[in-house]
Amino acid sequence: MSRFLSAETAALEPYTPGEQPQNLRYNKLNTNESPFPPSPRVLEALSREEIGRLNLYSDPACTALCAAIARHYGVEDRQVIAGNGSDEILSFAFRAFCGADRGAAFADITYGFYRVWARYYGLRARIVPLREDFSLRTEDYMGGNETVFLANPNAPTGMAAAPGEIRRLLEADRDRVVVVDEAYMDFGTGSCVPLLAEFDNLLVVRTFSKSRSLAGGRVGYALGGPELIAGLNRVKYSFNPYNVNRLSILAGTAAMEDEAYFRRCVDAVCANRSWTAARLKELGFTVLPSSANFVFVKSDAIPGGELYRRLKERGILVRHFDTPERIADFCRITIGSMEQMKELADTIELLLNGQ
Amino acid sequence: MSRFLSAETAALEPYTPGEQPQNLRYNKLNTNESPFPPSPRVLEALSREEIGRLNLYSDPACTALCAAIARHYGVEDRQVIAGNGSDEILSFAFRAFCGADRGAAFADITYGFYRVWARYYGLRARIVPLREDFSLRTEDYMGGNETVFLANPNAPTGMAAAPGEIRRLLEADRDRVVVVDEAYMDFGTGSCVPLLAEFDNLLVVRTFSKSRSLAGGRVGYALGGPELIAGLNRVKYSFNPYNVNRLSILAGTAAMEDEAYFRRCVDAVCANRSWTAARLKELGFTVLPSSANFVFVKSDAIPGGELYRRLKERGILVRHFDTPERIADFCRITIGSMEQMKELADTIELLLNGQ
Repeated sequence: MSRFLSAETAALEPYTPGEQPQNLRYNKLNTNESPFPPSPRVLEALSREEIGRLNLYSDPACTALCAAIARHYGVEDRQVIAGNGSDEILSFAFRAFCGADRGAAFADITYGFYRVWARYYGLRARIVPLREDFSLRTEDYMGGNETVFLANPNAPTGMAAAPGEIRRLLEADRDRVVVVDEAYMDFGTGSCVPLLAEFDNLLVVRTFSKSRSLAGGRVGYALGGPELIAGLNRVKYSFNPYNVNRLSILAGTAAMEDEAYFRRCVDAVCANRSWTAARLKELGFTVLPSSANFVFVKSDAIPGGELYRRLKERGILVRHFDTPERIADFCRITIGSMEQMKELADTIELLLNGQ
Repeated sequence: MSRFLSAETAALEPYTPGEQPQNLRYNKLNTNESPFPPSPRVLEALSREEIGRLNLYSDPACTALCAAIARHYGVEDRQVIAGNGSDEILSFAFRAFCGADRGAAFADITYGFYRVWARYYGLRARIVPLREDFSLRTEDYMGGNETVFLANPNAPTGMAAAPGEIRRLLEADRDRVVVVDEAYMDFGTGSCVPLLAEFDNLLVVRTFSKSRSLAGGRVGYALGGPELIAGLNRVKYSFNPYNVNRLSILAGTAAMEDEAYFRRCVDAVCANRSWTAARLKELGFTVLPSSANFVFVKSDAIPGGELYRRLKERGILVRHFDTPERIADFCRITIGSMEQMKELADTIELLLNGQ
């Protein structure tokens, strides 16, 4: 390791994002992007005139964007913070609500970045195994004082927590923050947002990257009690106050206000998901019940790593995780357009037939 | 303080950015933005087609942008990293090159965020006073092992280090990283970029916010030896890999490639700076020698805080810092268009005449 690095930084284990090939043309089903372009209102909002104003700083408070989000969810503006993708907001939450006296607890199988952030901030991490069927049992989190990070629906399984599970955790210790990462919630049901009225220890993190077709705009946000939002702002203003650029503020605001377009995109993804799940089951796959814009699947006929490699050879990118071992047989496949899903299914069928 | 916050986060002292009024129309000379719109090539690059691709993630490696920057400076691509403004890059540098065994050293009068980051990362901070005339003496940094952070030209004074000062520091201890924050260097001379060929302990941090008219796009970058860049990438990939959005990557690339426009904007700012400095001197002001796109000025006739307030009442925003005490008499005034500077000077003249 370089002589210039601090010991703390030498000890990091950075995250590996999904492949983002810049030149080749893939049927790209590996990073859970929307197959649809952003709302036409986003194109209107990013006018020539606004691009011409890029010489001026963005609003560090993201006032207009936070107001649009607050209106959408029926919460107060001071219950919202925006960030450079939900990754930044989640990272701020690890910093704000964990420390030497309070570690972080999360599942063994969940968004892989939680582990990276725990290490980044030098935190004790309590890894809580999911049940054998990958479902969540919040009792397993009780007793500790760690701040809890739950992805719901979970990644990479796509499975949603049973109603009442998260509420029980929030009730069990009202001095303990529970962060619910709802990056994929628009494709399912059972959001914790209605619980915000009851629990000031709840933070719900969301993103424009999936259901709002703005992965490339990098906009995420969190909803929570004013105390939690103020805590996240302490971190933000100690790290990088101008964290969302002018055009992304405009794009996010416009996307949030176009409810009809949002609904159409989400409905199409959910329909394509049903089709894909049925088709893969016909082909002998196990398909976990998904509330997200991806499916997590395995086949007895072809190991996960091999499926990933053989699809990639044929121009289709999906995501495979080597660890933990009990998911190594699976692949995570983004739900794209019908055309994309048909190509995927047809290619898998050929592979299984030895072609 | 909230019961939810970690002790570490409760202890933070967040940065206060310059005012960014969203509704009122000010002659805004307080945050060192360019008075000129971004290059016409930026408008071309942010096409309808590209906006329509915002559903896809940005390239986490910012390959095209880093290549354009590398070409401009004649360095290798692996000597460049891009970030969400130079603030993010500077923050990564505090994390990567400082730790429990190695603090951070910086001037008593410099970019106020260095102090905030040192606290954010729990670092020992060695504050090194500038000379009485606000000039830098790098001997004062020698002997310690701290990573050194120097703004050159310095903020808020605008003064550039004497040639040879920074080289002496780089030579004195080649195991110690020196971070030179050249946010304003395009408006002066004496960049450390040519020293990169000689010193692998040098990191030069730059921004598109000032001379490239992209403050609202949030793009910064650093140039350094491959080891230092790899260290910053360890931090980036442990914090937020997709840190620059698609449109900002395109905007930065286009701005970097339009050398002629860049040159015209910088020349205009430098000409307006000469005019402004001369005019303020005529009005009895002390004007520090500026190599930046702002001037740091004081008048015996009106204290700094009062000048700030009275200009604001008249619709002109400048920046005043209460601390440290030896700069409390000054105001920092951004160099804008001639029209903006004339309004400023005329208004100050009226104020001094008691009107």
